Amino acid sequence: MSSCAFSTCKLHDTLLDHEFICNKPSCFPKHLVHLKTNRISANLSCLKISPYNSSTWQQTGRLQCRALDVESNRTFLKGDLFQLDDVIEAQQFDREILSAIFEVAREMETIEKKSRGSQILKGYLMATLFYEPSTRTRLSFESAMKRLGGEVLTTENAREFSSAAKGETLEDTIRTVEGYTDIIVMRHFESGAARRAAMTANIPVINAGDGPGQHPTQALLDVYTIEREIGRLDGIKVGLVGDLANGRTVRSLAYLLAKYNGVKIYFVSPEVVKMKDDIKEYLTSKGVKWEESANLKEVASKCDVVYQTRIQRERFGERIDLYDEARGKYIVDRNILSAMQKHAVITLEVDGDPRAAYFRQAKNGLFIRMALLKLLLLGW
Amino acid sequence: MSSCAFSTCKLHDTLLDHEFICNKPSCFPKHLVHLKTNRISANLSCLKISPYNSSTWQQTGRLQCRALDVESNRTFLKGDLFQLDDVIEAQQFDREILSAIFEVAREMETIEKKSRGSQILKGYLMATLFYEPSTRTRLSFESAMKRLGGEVLTTENAREFSSAAKGETLEDTIRTVEGYTDIIVMRHFESGAARRAAMTANIPVINAGDGPGQHPTQALLDVYTIEREIGRLDGIKVGLVGDLANGRTVRSLAYLLAKYNGVKIYFVSPEVVKMKDDIKEYLTSKGVKWEESANLKEVASKCDVVYQTRIQRERFGERIDLYDEARGKYIVDRNILSAMQKHAVITLEVDGDPRAAYFRQAKNGLFIRMALLKLLLLGW
Amino acid sequence: MSSCAFSTCKLHDTLLDHEFICNKPSCFPKHLVHLKTNRISANLSCLKISPYNSSTWQQTGRLQCRALDVESNRTFLKGDLFQLDDVIEAQQFDREILSAIFEVAREMETIEKKSRGSQILKGYLMATLFYEPSTRTRLSFESAMKRLGGEVLTTENAREFSSAAKGETLEDTIRTVEGYTDIIVMRHFESGAARRAAMTANIPVINAGDGPGQHPTQALLDVYTIEREIGRLDGIKVGLVGDLANGRTVRSLAYLLAKYNGVKIYFVSPEVVKMKDDIKEYLTSKGVKWEESANLKEVASKCDVVYQTRIQRERFGERIDLYDEARGKYIVDRNILSAMQKHAVITLEVDGDPRAAYFRQAKNGLFIRMALLKLLLLGW
Repeated sequence: MSSCAFSTCKLHDTLLDHEFICNKPSCFPKHLVHLKTNRISANLSCLKISPYNSSTWQQTGRLQCRALDVESNRTFLKGDLFQLDDVIEAQQFDREILSAIFEVAREMETIEKKSRGSQILKGYLMATLFYEPSTRTRLSFESAMKRLGGEVLTTENAREFSSAAKGETLEDTIRTVEGYTDIIVMRHFESGAARRAAMTANIPVINAGDGPGQHPTQALLDVYTIEREIGRLDGIKVGLVGDLANGRTVRSLAYLLAKYNGVKIYFVSPEVVKMKDDIKEYLTSKGVKWEESANLKEVASKCDVVYQTRIQRERFGERIDLYDEARGKYIVDRNILSAMQKHAVITLEVDGDPRAAYFRQAKNGLFIRMALLKLLLLGW
Repeated sequence: MSSCAFSTCKLHDTLLDHEFICNKPSCFPKHLVHLKTNRISANLSCLKISPYNSSTWQQTGRLQCRALDVESNRTFLKGDLFQLDDVIEAQQFDREILSAIFEVAREMETIEKKSRGSQILKGYLMATLFYEPSTRTRLSFESAMKRLGGEVLTTENAREFSSAAKGETLEDTIRTVEGYTDIIVMRHFESGAARRAAMTANIPVINAGDGPGQHPTQALLDVYTIEREIGRLDGIKVGLVGDLANGRTVRSLAYLLAKYNGVKIYFVSPEVVKMKDDIKEYLTSKGVKWEESANLKEVASKCDVVYQTRIQRERFGERIDLYDEARGKYIVDRNILSAMQKHAVITLEVDGDPRAAYFRQAKNGLFIRMALLKLLLLGW
Repeated sequence: MSSCAFSTCKLHDTLLDHEFICNKPSCFPKHLVHLKTNRISANLSCLKISPYNSSTWQQTGRLQCRALDVESNRTFLKGDLFQLDDVIEAQQFDREILSAIFEVAREMETIEKKSRGSQILKGYLMATLFYEPSTRTRLSFESAMKRLGGEVLTTENAREFSSAAKGETLEDTIRTVEGYTDIIVMRHFESGAARRAAMTANIPVINAGDGPGQHPTQALLDVYTIEREIGRLDGIKVGLVGDLANGRTVRSLAYLLAKYNGVKIYFVSPEVVKMKDDIKEYLTSKGVKWEESANLKEVASKCDVVYQTRIQRERFGERIDLYDEARGKYIVDRNILSAMQKHAVITLEVDGDPRAAYFRQAKNGLFIRMALLKLLLLGW
């Protein structure tokens, strides 16, 4: 028995007769199911059993069916290590996967116009299913797909699917859209939506931000940018500065940095938007050293990377005085820059502050997304 | 003399000198007109006559012009039977055309990625001209076009053309857009808009829904789904259940079913949303047996297909009690399912209820739309 | 030393050591800069200098850097005459450039589906960055790009970039988008926005309308249409009729006509929307004869071209009586048409009045835009 990545689907795998019991809601009559697992890639052709004949289905939204035939496909595996099925959250990656993704991203940087490499995704269709607009993120993904020869279906109006008139659940929308396309890039306003989509879909799903939840491709490009600028990730000292309570990117970055050895993190923020305890506890449990400081200049002088997030006025309510003080105190200016070491770099939260574009993050984001599309659609 | 399909355009055809008198509004100076007819496909090169010199034009929106040369093109004809010019309403199809379209749709199911078949529309451009959003329908058409190698121009904002500032008529918009593209897929909020567009355009037009009017590709996919599930259309018994007064798909389905032999239709609906008389009279005139029933369970036990449409609360005004009663009485639940015959299937109105996706209708819709695009752009 | 087109960027060019001092804001560490100049095309690989180390940068939004190596690329030049870098305003074109663009546009008219010519922009990506919707203009550009084998990234929601939440400047947006694409077509609501974008971007920018400012591709297609219809531009007599105060196209057209010899322009408009003095003075300074007239019929009898712009009710405030009078007096009707010479043509402002589509302007606009895309991306 093995279980699907990001899914409640259970597989009862009897190798002798190749029969599976599957309780995935999307596993229905005559449908060819591509089960996504960490270990094997199986094509299941299900028996025709009406979902309405299954009492469990109506109660739980699930259905039992049986696979007639299973073909194990191990060509996608790299050293039997992992198969990338979906990109849902930063925590899903360990340092081996990160390293492999970054290697592919660097290959993407070298692809030239009209070369063979620029056509590897020819014939593939990606849907950008956006429940709220995010032009920057959408264009980055669509550019990545087209730079590899793939095609795109776009909607920034996906909320219409779940409008009062249509009343469709996210799961139903995913089941429809997966019929039209080969991969779904989804932006949603609700935390956890991407995971629900991936549980439903039989094609890969990439989370392009789900509300206050995750934005894993942003986190990946932040780490990729640091590695490209500093040359390493082990042993780096990173100052996270600004609004640490609300930024999903700074939280994801902390998660990812915890995967490297000897990392030291400094939190520098106004009291009202301090880094939350869950991240601090996670870092401690992973053996990552961290400390809080109110002295940005001193922190900056010690760090290899200063990661600045934008402080939003609305977080301070009516205390504009505190907001003005915070802006003066927790923003990297020339005074701070002069204290920084020669080799150090500043990275900026792309989502919140476009000046990050100065640091090639937009381009790095493109390469990371090209790498992920290639890995999800073609494998390693 | 022959007349254009879906057009008021009259052709006075004198074969000896190849001269046509055409009163199509779009037939103007130097413009190469592709006249769409059921019987011949003619390219007309018009004399340069200013529309302003024509007194009839200013009054009627029409213009007279003369063709210098006509080239009959019969390569598109299949057994001299028909040429598909536009897809405007379900009634335009007879069972021979339906059968031929379904045959092409089944071919579409077998097209593989990167195969030669997946590139047959390479070089063709489709415009999705949507006056109101319908993400599901739009993505289905765009996926169909791209699965065949074609390209897409998208707008869900076509209403802007006719905004107060621009003040453009539908006809003018069509004349502009046909300059940019090879085929127009139009969604409009007004009944009859698709027919007006087809009358104007010199390229094919597909109706992707015009207000409370038609949605013919939806009707086609419903019939296609039934044939795929049951294996035949002649002699089937179909229960139409739910809101029969307002659903355009259930009305179109009734029209199409009337083309088959020995069909029996049962209408099961609350009083307030009963099937309207025009459809009943049409069915009677075509020799189709039908009856109304309030006993869904009994009907379900007799039918091969139960077609469920969603009952919308707003149809009942303030009589929430009637609405609640209707929902309990006219919805297929496990009790009804247990009464159904083993081979029977349930289909659900895709437009109104997304659960239909369970029944492969989304995929069937994709194949039907691929077939129509192929037929309209390349012929049989 | 040479200076960039539409840019404040200064190049201190010492040919011996190939060193440049560049103060372009987008010229930053490791970035490969494609400097756009009228005379040379240079690729600059900059030294890694943090923008924060430059005191001038923070004050002026600029940055100094040095080029390590320069490769002059003269293959794009046609007779060493000009290189098209951006399309920002009608005034940037002289008659030689106009003539060359029109020649390319005529070549575009002959490109056939699936021919080699229909794929010359394969591998290129265009972004349509629209800060306000203009479906007609957007579809025309996107059709042009796709007719040449190129790909498109679309947003009509670019205003989201500069929303309160994101607070991004136009320059920052351009720096991000240029990372995703090869050419930017921008529509903006502010006059001068296109010039600012072109100053920032290291890829070509086409102005698709910036507020009450310029709409140069529209002006180009008007002139192209006149040349196609009348056969020449020197010595033509043109009546500009209607709202001459507010239409940007009629103003751009006047600028372009001033580049030809022996042109005579008649202004015919209600008092409240007369042609403004700046254009009149410009024409006088260029030796173009012009006169104002209230007698449309007399003017029409003398002209080769009558260019009609729509008169908008809102320009007249509460004086509906004046509006009604103006409509009767300054609109080309059958009475005016009968006074016109046989060879004369009427062109209509496409932006304001869709009837212009009758005059093949939509198609001409497509060919002009295809020509510009080809020239900007591939050179002559």
